[in-house]
Amino acid sequence: MPTPTTPPVSALTTDLYELNMVQAYLDKGETGEAVFEFFVRRLPARRGFLLAAGLEDALDYIETLRFTSEEIDWLKSTGRFRDNFLAYLKDFRFTGDVHAIPEGSVCFPNEPLIRITAPLPQAQLVESRLINILHFQTLIASKAARMVLAAPGKILSDFGLRTAHGAEAGLYSARASYIAGFSGAANVVAGQRYGIPVMGTMAHSYIQVHDDELTAFETFARARPNDVIFLIDTYDTEAGARKVVELSARLKADGIVIRGVRIDSGDLIASARKVRGILNAGGLKDVIILVSGGINEDVLQGMMTERAPIDGFGIGVNLDASIDAPSLDCAYKLQEYKGTPKRKLSEGKQTWPGRKQVWRSYGADGRMSGDALSVEGDPQAGEPLIEQVMRGGERIKPAPTLAQIRERAARDLARLPEPLRQLQPGNDYPVKVADKLVALAKEADARTRR
Amino acid sequence: MPTPTTPPVSALTTDLYELNMVQAYLDKGETGEAVFEFFVRRLPARRGFLLAAGLEDALDYIETLRFTSEEIDWLKSTGRFRDNFLAYLKDFRFTGDVHAIPEGSVCFPNEPLIRITAPLPQAQLVESRLINILHFQTLIASKAARMVLAAPGKILSDFGLRTAHGAEAGLYSARASYIAGFSGAANVVAGQRYGIPVMGTMAHSYIQVHDDELTAFETFARARPNDVIFLIDTYDTEAGARKVVELSARLKADGIVIRGVRIDSGDLIASARKVRGILNAGGLKDVIILVSGGINEDVLQGMMTERAPIDGFGIGVNLDASIDAPSLDCAYKLQEYKGTPKRKLSEGKQTWPGRKQVWRSYGADGRMSGDALSVEGDPQAGEPLIEQVMRGGERIKPAPTLAQIRERAARDLARLPEPLRQLQPGNDYPVKVADKLVALAKEADARTRR
Repeated sequence: MPTPTTPPVSALTTDLYELNMVQAYLDKGETGEAVFEFFVRRLPARRGFLLAAGLEDALDYIETLRFTSEEIDWLKSTGRFRDNFLAYLKDFRFTGDVHAIPEGSVCFPNEPLIRITAPLPQAQLVESRLINILHFQTLIASKAARMVLAAPGKILSDFGLRTAHGAEAGLYSARASYIAGFSGAANVVAGQRYGIPVMGTMAHSYIQVHDDELTAFETFARARPNDVIFLIDTYDTEAGARKVVELSARLKADGIVIRGVRIDSGDLIASARKVRGILNAGGLKDVIILVSGGINEDVLQGMMTERAPIDGFGIGVNLDASIDAPSLDCAYKLQEYKGTPKRKLSEGKQTWPGRKQVWRSYGADGRMSGDALSVEGDPQAGEPLIEQVMRGGERIKPAPTLAQIRERAARDLARLPEPLRQLQPGNDYPVKVADKLVALAKEADARTRR
Repeated sequence: MPTPTTPPVSALTTDLYELNMVQAYLDKGETGEAVFEFFVRRLPARRGFLLAAGLEDALDYIETLRFTSEEIDWLKSTGRFRDNFLAYLKDFRFTGDVHAIPEGSVCFPNEPLIRITAPLPQAQLVESRLINILHFQTLIASKAARMVLAAPGKILSDFGLRTAHGAEAGLYSARASYIAGFSGAANVVAGQRYGIPVMGTMAHSYIQVHDDELTAFETFARARPNDVIFLIDTYDTEAGARKVVELSARLKADGIVIRGVRIDSGDLIASARKVRGILNAGGLKDVIILVSGGINEDVLQGMMTERAPIDGFGIGVNLDASIDAPSLDCAYKLQEYKGTPKRKLSEGKQTWPGRKQVWRSYGADGRMSGDALSVEGDPQAGEPLIEQVMRGGERIKPAPTLAQIRERAARDLARLPEPLRQLQPGNDYPVKVADKLVALAKEADARTRR
C-alpha cells in the first residue's frame, strides 16, 4: 500500500446512504460495472473558469481506502448492517479504473474532472469523500487563480489556516493555492506534507510582550536572522517604519539583513506609500512591504491599478473559505451501468450520459478557443483532456510532482482567452456538446422505463 | 494522555509565525505568564447572536498536543530552528489554565469564548489550531441555530459532508449542528466519533441502476427493512409517490413499514403537497416527507409560513459552509503579560485588555435582557458565564456529554429575546462594558511605550 500524502481520515467519512446502497447491492448481487463522473454543474457568479485540483489526493484516497476492524465493529454495533456487508468492507480494495482531467488544468462546467469505472458497490462507496476532496480543492484553486491573475508578479501567501473550515481545509487550501500560483503558505504542515514553501512573520502579541517595539524588533531579528520581517502596525505604522530604519544599521553591522515589513491594518495603500517613503529615505530600498487583512482579488486589482508599493500579500479567509463563493454546484453521477448509458431526469438537474471526453481547441494566438464534450471514442477537433490515471485500482504512472502540477496551471492560465482573465468575465467560454452525445442523451431518455 | 475525540491532526497544523515567535521567546527566556482570549469581533450581517461551540475539541487539542520525532526532525531539516526550540517541542506539554464560556451557550461579540493563561511560548503555540477549531464550530453552530429557530419541531439533518471544506469540516459541522438542535447527520463518522444519530436514504444512482423505479424501491426496502425512506424524484415525483403507495401493501404483508419519502428537486413545496395528497389517499398518512436541495433558514421559514406538509429537511452546503457568512471576524489576543494588562491599538482593531468575565441578566419573562463585560473579580448584575475548565494543563472535571451541551443550547435558545429569534434580528443585544474595564483600557493605552 503506498504512503498517502493525504492526512489519514476515517473510512467512515462518508454518508450513510452510500452504505445503505452498498448493503442493498450486495444483497441482490448487483455488482456490475458502473461508470460515475464528477463534474461542476455551473460556475458561481463572476467566475469564468475552474482550475482542477485535488486529483492526486483523491487517487490516494481511492488507492488506500481500507476499513479497520474498529470501524467495522462499530458499524456492526449499530445493528444496521448484515454480515455480507461487513465482510465486504473487511476485504475492501478499490479495483476499478480512473480517468481524469489532470490537476492544474483549466476546465469548465459539465466537463468530467474524474471518471470512476468499477463494480457498482465500489464506485458508490467512494462517492462522498471523493467529492469532498475534489470539490474543495477545485473551489480554492479556482479562487486562488483569480488572485494570481489579478496580481501578476506579486508574492501571494496563504495565511488562512485559522479561519479555514477545519485543519484539512487549511492544508488543502495551501496545496490548491500553491498549484494556482501562490508563492507559499503560513501553514507549517503544508511544508512538511507537500513541500510547499512556508512563510511567516510575527503577531501583534509579539510586539506587545516587549517593553517597546524597537526591542521587540531587535530580539526577533537576532532570533530569526535569516527571515526578518517586522510587523509594524501594532501601535503606529509610520513610527514602526522609522524604527526599522533606525535598527537596520545596527543589524547590518552584525550581518543581519532586514527582508521586509508587514502592515495588517488601516488604509493599506496609504500606509504602504508612507512606509515605502520612510524606508527609501532610510536607504532601505530592498526591504519589501507585505500587507495582510481583508485581501481578495478585487482588492489586489485595485492595488495594482493604484500602483501601490506593495510587494506581497498574506491572504486569509477570502482564500481559505472562498468567501464570495464558498461552494461549487457539483455532482457525482451514474453515467453508465452494465454497458447502458444512464441519465438523471430530475427537474433542472439533467446530466449528459455515458463515458465522456473533453476536446480543447486553441486559436492562432495560442489561447483556448473552445471545448467540445463528446462521448469517449468520438474524436473532435482539438486535444483530448481526459486521460486514464488508474487501472485495476493502481496508478498507471507515478504521481506528478506538485511543481509539475503548478507548471500545468501556469501554462493553462496563460492560455486563457483575455475576457476570462478578467475578474468580471466578459463572456462565456464555448463548450459545445458533440452530436453523438446529444443523440445518446435522447436514446437514454427514450429507454428509461421509470 | 486522554483519548482525543478530535481526529488526530499533525501538530504542525499551525502558522509558521507561531514557531518563529516561540524560538525568539525561548532565546530571550521570555516565558512569563501570558493571558490570551479568543473572541468574535462583530456579527455577520443578519445575525443577532452566536452559539459557542468547539470547546471540548479545543481542550482535547490543548491537552494532547505533542510533537512526534518525525515532525521535529522535519523542522530541524528546514534549518530554521535552533536546538533549544527543538528540545522544547520534544518535551512539550501544555501546563496552563483555561477558562471558557461553556459550549452550547449563546454569546455575543467581544465576549471571550476561551481564555488561555500559560507560559508565553505555550499560549502562543496553540493559537492557530485553537482558533481553527473554535471559529469553525461556533460559525456552524450559530448558523444551525438559525435553522432550528426557523423550523421548530422539524427533523433537520446535516447532509453537507460532500461539499464541506474537507473531512474535518464535515465532521465538525455534524457536531456543531447537533449541538444547535439538529436531529442528526448523514456523515457516518459523526456517529462513530460523537454518537450523533446518523441518517440516510439513497441516491438517484440507486434508482437508475435498476430497470425500473418500483423494483429499486422494493429491493431497497427488503435490504434495509428498518429504515425505509425512498427517494422519489429521479424521474417523476408524483409517479414515484404512487409507486410507494402501490408497494406499501406488499411490504406491509412482510412486516416492512415505509418510514418516509425524500424529494430532492423541483418546486419542493408544490411537490410535497401533491405527494402528501397521494400518500394520504393511499392510506399512508404516517409516511413522512423529507426534502433536500438548497435548504437554508430563509427557505425553512418560507416553508413554515406556507405550512408545507414537510416533516424533515436534509441540509447540505448552506449549513456546512455557512454560505451566507462563511467566516466570523475573530481574534486571539494577548490581554495580559507578566501581570500587566495589554491592548492592541491597531487602527480599527482595538481590544479590551485584561482577564474578563461576562455577566448575563434575565428579564421577568426569563429571557436574556443584557450582558456586561467586566474585568475578572468585578461582579456585575446577573450570572457569570466564564468558568475555569482546565488547571495546570488538565481538565478540572470530566467533559460534558454532547447531550448535555445540546441541552444547554436548547435552554439558551429558548431564552433569547424575541427580536433575536428572528432571521432578520430586530435590534442589537446590549453588551455593556463595565466601568473598571473602560478604566483599565485607558490605563493600558497610557502605559504603552510603543
